[in-house]
Amino acid sequence: MSCVADQPGAEGSPRVLVAGATGFAGALAAQLIWHHPGFELVALTGRSNVGRALQELYPRYRVPLPIEDPAGERAQAIDAAVVAYPHAAAAPTVGALRDRGARVIDLSADFRLGSLATYEAWYGEHPRPDLLEQAVYGLTEMHRERIAGAAIVANPGCYPTAAVLALAPLARAGLIADVVVDAKQGVSGAGRRADEDTTHLSMIGENILPYKVAAHRHTPEIEEQLALLGADVRVQFQAHLVPLDQGELASCYVTPTRPLAAADLQELYRDAYAGEPFVELADAPPGTRDVLATNFCRLFVAADQHTGKVVVLSAIDNLWKGTSSQAVQNLNLMFGREESEGLL
Amino acid sequence: MSCVADQPGAEGSPRVLVAGATGFAGALAAQLIWHHPGFELVALTGRSNVGRALQELYPRYRVPLPIEDPAGERAQAIDAAVVAYPHAAAAPTVGALRDRGARVIDLSADFRLGSLATYEAWYGEHPRPDLLEQAVYGLTEMHRERIAGAAIVANPGCYPTAAVLALAPLARAGLIADVVVDAKQGVSGAGRRADEDTTHLSMIGENILPYKVAAHRHTPEIEEQLALLGADVRVQFQAHLVPLDQGELASCYVTPTRPLAAADLQELYRDAYAGEPFVELADAPPGTRDVLATNFCRLFVAADQHTGKVVVLSAIDNLWKGTSSQAVQNLNLMFGREESEGLL
Amino acid sequence: MSCVADQPGAEGSPRVLVAGATGFAGALAAQLIWHHPGFELVALTGRSNVGRALQELYPRYRVPLPIEDPAGERAQAIDAAVVAYPHAAAAPTVGALRDRGARVIDLSADFRLGSLATYEAWYGEHPRPDLLEQAVYGLTEMHRERIAGAAIVANPGCYPTAAVLALAPLARAGLIADVVVDAKQGVSGAGRRADEDTTHLSMIGENILPYKVAAHRHTPEIEEQLALLGADVRVQFQAHLVPLDQGELASCYVTPTRPLAAADLQELYRDAYAGEPFVELADAPPGTRDVLATNFCRLFVAADQHTGKVVVLSAIDNLWKGTSSQAVQNLNLMFGREESEGLL
Amino acid sequence: MSCVADQPGAEGSPRVLVAGATGFAGALAAQLIWHHPGFELVALTGRSNVGRALQELYPRYRVPLPIEDPAGERAQAIDAAVVAYPHAAAAPTVGALRDRGARVIDLSADFRLGSLATYEAWYGEHPRPDLLEQAVYGLTEMHRERIAGAAIVANPGCYPTAAVLALAPLARAGLIADVVVDAKQGVSGAGRRADEDTTHLSMIGENILPYKVAAHRHTPEIEEQLALLGADVRVQFQAHLVPLDQGELASCYVTPTRPLAAADLQELYRDAYAGEPFVELADAPPGTRDVLATNFCRLFVAADQHTGKVVVLSAIDNLWKGTSSQAVQNLNLMFGREESEGLL
Repeated sequence: MSCVADQPGAEGSPRVLVAGATGFAGALAAQLIWHHPGFELVALTGRSNVGRALQELYPRYRVPLPIEDPAGERAQAIDAAVVAYPHAAAAPTVGALRDRGARVIDLSADFRLGSLATYEAWYGEHPRPDLLEQAVYGLTEMHRERIAGAAIVANPGCYPTAAVLALAPLARAGLIADVVVDAKQGVSGAGRRADEDTTHLSMIGENILPYKVAAHRHTPEIEEQLALLGADVRVQFQAHLVPLDQGELASCYVTPTRPLAAADLQELYRDAYAGEPFVELADAPPGTRDVLATNFCRLFVAADQHTGKVVVLSAIDNLWKGTSSQAVQNLNLMFGREESEGLL
Repeated sequence: MSCVADQPGAEGSPRVLVAGATGFAGALAAQLIWHHPGFELVALTGRSNVGRALQELYPRYRVPLPIEDPAGERAQAIDAAVVAYPHAAAAPTVGALRDRGARVIDLSADFRLGSLATYEAWYGEHPRPDLLEQAVYGLTEMHRERIAGAAIVANPGCYPTAAVLALAPLARAGLIADVVVDAKQGVSGAGRRADEDTTHLSMIGENILPYKVAAHRHTPEIEEQLALLGADVRVQFQAHLVPLDQGELASCYVTPTRPLAAADLQELYRDAYAGEPFVELADAPPGTRDVLATNFCRLFVAADQHTGKVVVLSAIDNLWKGTSSQAVQNLNLMFGREESEGLL
Repeated sequence: MSCVADQPGAEGSPRVLVAGATGFAGALAAQLIWHHPGFELVALTGRSNVGRALQELYPRYRVPLPIEDPAGERAQAIDAAVVAYPHAAAAPTVGALRDRGARVIDLSADFRLGSLATYEAWYGEHPRPDLLEQAVYGLTEMHRERIAGAAIVANPGCYPTAAVLALAPLARAGLIADVVVDAKQGVSGAGRRADEDTTHLSMIGENILPYKVAAHRHTPEIEEQLALLGADVRVQFQAHLVPLDQGELASCYVTPTRPLAAADLQELYRDAYAGEPFVELADAPPGTRDVLATNFCRLFVAADQHTGKVVVLSAIDNLWKGTSSQAVQNLNLMFGREESEGLL
Repeated sequence: MSCVADQPGAEGSPRVLVAGATGFAGALAAQLIWHHPGFELVALTGRSNVGRALQELYPRYRVPLPIEDPAGERAQAIDAAVVAYPHAAAAPTVGALRDRGARVIDLSADFRLGSLATYEAWYGEHPRPDLLEQAVYGLTEMHRERIAGAAIVANPGCYPTAAVLALAPLARAGLIADVVVDAKQGVSGAGRRADEDTTHLSMIGENILPYKVAAHRHTPEIEEQLALLGADVRVQFQAHLVPLDQGELASCYVTPTRPLAAADLQELYRDAYAGEPFVELADAPPGTRDVLATNFCRLFVAADQHTGKVVVLSAIDNLWKGTSSQAVQNLNLMFGREESEGLL
């Protein structure tokens, strides 16, 4: 099997650590960076499975590096780090890594919300509010320039990624009067911890399972991003688990502020995403399988003549564009690499 | 294996034919009637597989009757028939069975819409418009008394079953200003015919697949039923296939005509469905697995304080309450049996 | 929703307790007994979820009885009990219930093996070896008469159920020289406890997962039963998890002691299972879907002219015939009911 | 979206055609070659969907080339072709491509069997027996040198790939006295054509489905390859469909010609596969998820002390190593590229 020396692109490249590499998000980030021609993956840390190679936990990723104790986060000379700890646990680690000069992409919610008050209403006390001003929200297509120079990138939640990409052109044009986002996701979004009420196949198999009615933490994140684009709306957001592993569809139903012709709507989206390497406009409703294991967001938009509403369907892979490959997309930007490098 | 003589409740009971028994809906109706203590299943017909026993096609149903040529529909003395042909093909069969005096439950769309104009706008020319006045819409909980005496029962579509049960209390109370229905369903709803673009596991596995954007035929059916309850609204309806066999969830997002207190909302639903044998109000969001292979509709309702909207989640088994077991529920009513007989 | 008074057949019937009702096996046994016309389900106990109704944990079973503390096992006047605790934990409970005069069906491995030495080699010290002589192995088709009079019925493991029914006719006829049993099963067989390495959909989805190579505890159980039928063979047994919930297929490859004509082989199986209510001989290879949620074992047998071997395919639902419905089949026998009552 | 000019490595590389690109195997081959840095994919042909871009049929592959009429197979200047037609249809196409000087990898069974008599016993008359002598069996690890110089490579069946890699070390050492191969596979192995009795999710979901008992066409292919290695055995082969898309596990049970110590067995396999880039020896039983969407074959081998048999578990992705990525592995060899190029 591969040995450590096999890493492509290791020589002289920026050195990257993945903290929290045993969960789904951290492990995939590690895999993408390991096989990336422009970065060197130098260490993995985790709060469990210390001493085991990552490929013992995830054989198909074939990353031979061992999981080290989180103390190892302080032992390496690194240029960058991806932090994949849960919210609240992430912020102190991000802080410690910043102290050592590393640029950090944080996959948790800790630095996603611009408003400290909103954070604390949804997540409790913030461990490191002093770092908030260093953070840039990492939805690449919305904040590309600021991400390139950021010290901390707050990688978006998977639902906000799909929803904001779906709604941004309408939001920016002041066209959203009211919006419902009905999102469906595979169980990888629920994380690696097995749970008899959600991720157990005997529960989620042959099931469609809505959860967190009127109470999902991604709601304020979506609203804040839409507000930055000029849309001051309250979002009706509802999440559902469905029996698959990776895949997410956000079905968005917008009541526009004024009637929209179909052709104008298509043009609005074509203009908004022209030249984007990872946003596709599809001619037919997108299935999540169309973007499986890719960094693409695939959109379909239609004006419903019968109701006057606009329907936007947005498909991503929640673990890829929704989490770990978007982190790599941002890492590319931060270190001056081609944005799509290692992702096609 | 079982022989024909094993049929429970055959002796002296109303005699029932199932026309179109080779598809998913007809086969399940046949299975439920075969094992029902109060009816005798006397014959099955179909346009394919003539001469084969139904249990060769569906071993787990263990119904030993053979599939007969549709001409067989005219050969038997029967009291009732369940017709499981596609729309347009169904109406002539329904007519022929009516001519022989049978009471008919039609699973197609042919007699669901009260307005002939609406039917023809969505389905094309109607083969037997003369029969429309004999037909009663078979959503049991809405039209129980008329179903009991009906000559023709138009069994509802699966999506309208879930959606109308979800929305009826609000519709009746004049509370719906605007509504979005986002529905998800397993592939049995797409029928038995295999299709490389939908029902093939290599397509629908690891997929979430929206279809018929702004163009689903169940939309006018839902709107017509809501109108009968007093709600004159245009429904934003969107359907999705997800990777399971049987199960359907309608997630309904209602903008109410006036603010609703949570307690009042709960009471509205409790009152509406008190005593209903097959409508459950759940304390937690319902998964479709909760109603798998049952005639139950499981509802959850919440007032979202943040948006002011009402969320109603409605879970059914699309093949059971959404189709074939609701047909048996109606058959029970039509022949004076306990409504839940053979269904618990 | 149903209230406790709704239990069918409660009045004056034998009173049954289910101990360990929160796991998959106990919960299904409770559901089958609750809806059985000939028994009264009087209490459920469990080591978790005390105070919650069973239908909160398993909504689709619609059993409203609460889970009581295991101490409750001693509080009720009962005629019979189904014990669904893990091995070693089960035996003391079985003993306590026997002391109160109840007849017990134990779903664990504690009383399945006739040889105490074999038990201790595979499971460790036996908590109640004194009770072994009261126990009858509960593979209904093999030990029907003794089960009818038994104080303790040791319900078989799911793999032995499928394998022994597949092999018994050959074993009894002295025809097995060598045998390989390759078994595949859905994840319900791994139990309700969620596990990131087995039952998590993100692990078992898109996976075929062999486990316990050359070391599965069901091997000695199969060998002991075959020995009772006269076949002294060592069984090559291998188990695999596949991505479904309920279903088990044992594919058995037998080198016969002498060449077998196809017609003789078919006759051997027809004779062996003539009149059996729950063993079917199929004309085509059986899928586990053919027996889903039933007490049937569906067999297919073929003589391979090319290799001289005999192939026997045996499909059951691991939770039903493999566990809980077989327990009810045995309960029927023990209390003089029709063997198939409540199971068709 | 990508345009044709985006193809990596197109300039000056060997020019490759994929004939029959609309099926699963051809489409994946096209995708791998399109993204390969060392080949230029110049054309796709197919018997359906002519004029549509491949990425309309398979969006996630993102190959923008159009499907051309099979006549197009004669219109292009090419160096190599991958033929993905069914057996009997493939051979004439292979012949026509050979006439134009292209080196051909045929994914069908037409050139896999060395014995014409065996071919005709299992598949019927051979359309081009004259070409058989040009063909080399394309199991890379077994015939690497001859593949490098071959005019026609007969890419192996997916089951023989897994089975022969599992058994080759034992076969070569003369250690196989008797062997059972129990294989399980996802539905992609059944091809793109939807089928209500196999690939429809409503059939294969919650199912384990054995097929072709004692009659699978891959049996003679396995036997012929084992014979080339010195093992003259009749293989008991049985295939099963399980509910997943891509993945295949061959569980092999060998009665050895002499007792084998565990350490010797491990050494035999380590020696056999030392240095192989795509064969892994695992420390634990391999799941097919470990090799999903890779060209790896992952093996686990154990000596069962109880039975004296050897168990070998062999996991591949049936569409990758079992079909299309092995074709690319061979293509690399044929054109002097690194064997693993484009596959890691």
